[in-house]
Amino acid sequence: MSLYPSSHVDESRLCSRIEAMARFGATEKGGVNRQALSAEDIQAQKEMIRWGRQLKLDASIDPAGNLFLRLKGADDSAEPVLSGSHLDSQPSGGKYDGAFGVLAAFEAVQAIQSAGIPLRRHIDIVAWMNEEGSRFAPGMAGSAAFAGSRTLDEIRQVVDAQGVSVGQALDTVMAELSELPIRPLGFPVSAYIEAHIEQGPVLERENMVIGVVTGIQGKKTYRVTVTGETAHAGTSCRAERRDALLASVAIIRALTTHMHDKEDVVKFTIGRLNIQPNAPSVVPGVAVFSIDLRHPDSKILSILGDAIPIICQAHADPCQVVVEELSSAASLVFTPSIRRCIAQAAQRLGLPQREINSAAGHDARYLNDVCATGMIFVPCHLGITHNEAESATPKDLADGARVLADVLAELAA
Amino acid sequence: MSLYPSSHVDESRLCSRIEAMARFGATEKGGVNRQALSAEDIQAQKEMIRWGRQLKLDASIDPAGNLFLRLKGADDSAEPVLSGSHLDSQPSGGKYDGAFGVLAAFEAVQAIQSAGIPLRRHIDIVAWMNEEGSRFAPGMAGSAAFAGSRTLDEIRQVVDAQGVSVGQALDTVMAELSELPIRPLGFPVSAYIEAHIEQGPVLERENMVIGVVTGIQGKKTYRVTVTGETAHAGTSCRAERRDALLASVAIIRALTTHMHDKEDVVKFTIGRLNIQPNAPSVVPGVAVFSIDLRHPDSKILSILGDAIPIICQAHADPCQVVVEELSSAASLVFTPSIRRCIAQAAQRLGLPQREINSAAGHDARYLNDVCATGMIFVPCHLGITHNEAESATPKDLADGARVLADVLAELAA
Repeated sequence: MSLYPSSHVDESRLCSRIEAMARFGATEKGGVNRQALSAEDIQAQKEMIRWGRQLKLDASIDPAGNLFLRLKGADDSAEPVLSGSHLDSQPSGGKYDGAFGVLAAFEAVQAIQSAGIPLRRHIDIVAWMNEEGSRFAPGMAGSAAFAGSRTLDEIRQVVDAQGVSVGQALDTVMAELSELPIRPLGFPVSAYIEAHIEQGPVLERENMVIGVVTGIQGKKTYRVTVTGETAHAGTSCRAERRDALLASVAIIRALTTHMHDKEDVVKFTIGRLNIQPNAPSVVPGVAVFSIDLRHPDSKILSILGDAIPIICQAHADPCQVVVEELSSAASLVFTPSIRRCIAQAAQRLGLPQREINSAAGHDARYLNDVCATGMIFVPCHLGITHNEAESATPKDLADGARVLADVLAELAA
Repeated sequence: MSLYPSSHVDESRLCSRIEAMARFGATEKGGVNRQALSAEDIQAQKEMIRWGRQLKLDASIDPAGNLFLRLKGADDSAEPVLSGSHLDSQPSGGKYDGAFGVLAAFEAVQAIQSAGIPLRRHIDIVAWMNEEGSRFAPGMAGSAAFAGSRTLDEIRQVVDAQGVSVGQALDTVMAELSELPIRPLGFPVSAYIEAHIEQGPVLERENMVIGVVTGIQGKKTYRVTVTGETAHAGTSCRAERRDALLASVAIIRALTTHMHDKEDVVKFTIGRLNIQPNAPSVVPGVAVFSIDLRHPDSKILSILGDAIPIICQAHADPCQVVVEELSSAASLVFTPSIRRCIAQAAQRLGLPQREINSAAGHDARYLNDVCATGMIFVPCHLGITHNEAESATPKDLADGARVLADVLAELAA
């Protein structure tokens, strides 16, 4: 009996599960639209529970809609090891973002079972609620509630574009999964490991298979509301108009110019913009847009963020502008002992590896506040992600699961 | 018995009907959201039919959903005189745009009845289907079909944002109004007179009550589709991005600069803009926006319009752009004899008047192709329109109806 379960990881089984999961919310172009707490998301969770039952894993859910599947260890008093990611996707997302982390944990647990490795700690496979934040902003809501960074009450108030609240949607999920025991929100955890596609081009470009993630870059999000006045497109003179779209265009240009850095490290994105009344022959009276700002250096992030309201005010004329900061997360560094454990596992398996900073946010951000935490990246073709064309090779995915299996077995031993 | 029915126009009766009509689709801020072929639009039409029945006017509808209420003249073989406007509104529209023209015609007809004026020609009050074009673009659809400028088949194919076609919505209207006789689409008309609020500030500023409309400025509309590529807001480098919103911002800035004229005569509006997937942490892959361009000089309109695809192409990098012209209408001049008739009526009533060009499009545009046509403007407070704050004084509205009543009586005599 080997102490390392990685030899029991089955590439084709892992990839079949990824393909099966991608059927829930499958898009015509081969991607996935499985937004948080949607009917598709519920179907995906039910499938996970069904698969878990085949391995005799105990399923449970917490009041934030985080789903757990437990492989039992010998010592019920020992804090469990958690591993997973999320099953929700962007509206035009890919098959791997999130789902890979959950299914790699599942494959790792199955490998540990097959290898007959004795565990002291329980291993909980977890699917966190609403990581993406596309339906209900901001994201990473389930992990934030678990770690106590946001209250569940506050999260339940958030509404989607149709006016449905997280609370309402969550109640539907809980009713659909009413056969599951409900565990309390938040419990002591020994360690959390999340496998994920890189969502950037670095590993592929350098022929690396494993990215040992050093930390996550900081991120701030904002909502900007520009208020002008509606008017008739055919009769109102330019001089009289207070066009909320044109003011937004001026603001966006100024912000884009300000955020331009030669090194191309700043990540500045306006991903959502809605104007009202949004009719061809009416001058727009209101424009609302999102800002997503990220930088690995918390100080620079803070300085850039502070400039946003000033720039918006300076270019809003003749409209009014209100800037709201929705979230602010500093850069963080993952636990050194976990990083070492991942690096050693990759080395034993002879997999080319490098340290890498995560440009994207992940549920691991919040877990890092409450337990030893680390992440394993695998290559993602051309770095394309949040896109239906997102892809990764079966071998890389399986290698990621192999490293994860060995790390989990070690942490739970 | 006076030959001029204007003395029988009742200001409070007219204004009560305007307020009553404004209840269909009333908004919280005192405006109206009564989009074409909506449930509210059908309610408004039913109310018109009910009012017409009280005056013993014969109601009928044509296959394009244009509603007619006939005051009979003596000579059934004479071509009728038409007067009206539309009952549909912008999503955040006012109480007067359109509704005033229909209800002024109704008040004029009631005044002619009360005055006992003998008519040779029938007078048809008309409410044209979908003038605004906010739900189903482009607008003035019912009058275009009536005048033969667009085929009903083509109009029926147009779909709204929910995928409902004009054809489907029209079938619902026809079923709801199935008690009405259906008259053929398009019939010979002697003259068409449309009363309307000015939708500009000129009459009010100059203390004029009646605007004798000389013609309508030309208008072109376009749809611009900018295609880039979705990407992850946290991981994709600026240099790699093909952000459809940022390309659109560059295009909109360049277009706005190009359309800037010192005289402030060019009307250039981007009233609709939608981006996909419209999620905060995804770089936009597609942006679609509308262009509404108007100018009283057809040659200048044409030159400005020709520049649009060139400017879009020049600033689309690194995205692709497709520019589609949706409609193109040259400037037009209304029938001189009708303009004289309106001016004389206003003069007899002692109302301050001036000639004025219409900056907005109206159903009168299409009627002008098939019969003697004219329009009567009344002041609109501060020129605010396509806005819930749209307002006009009861006295000005009644004076408009008085001029209309005398003109209709003369044309139908």
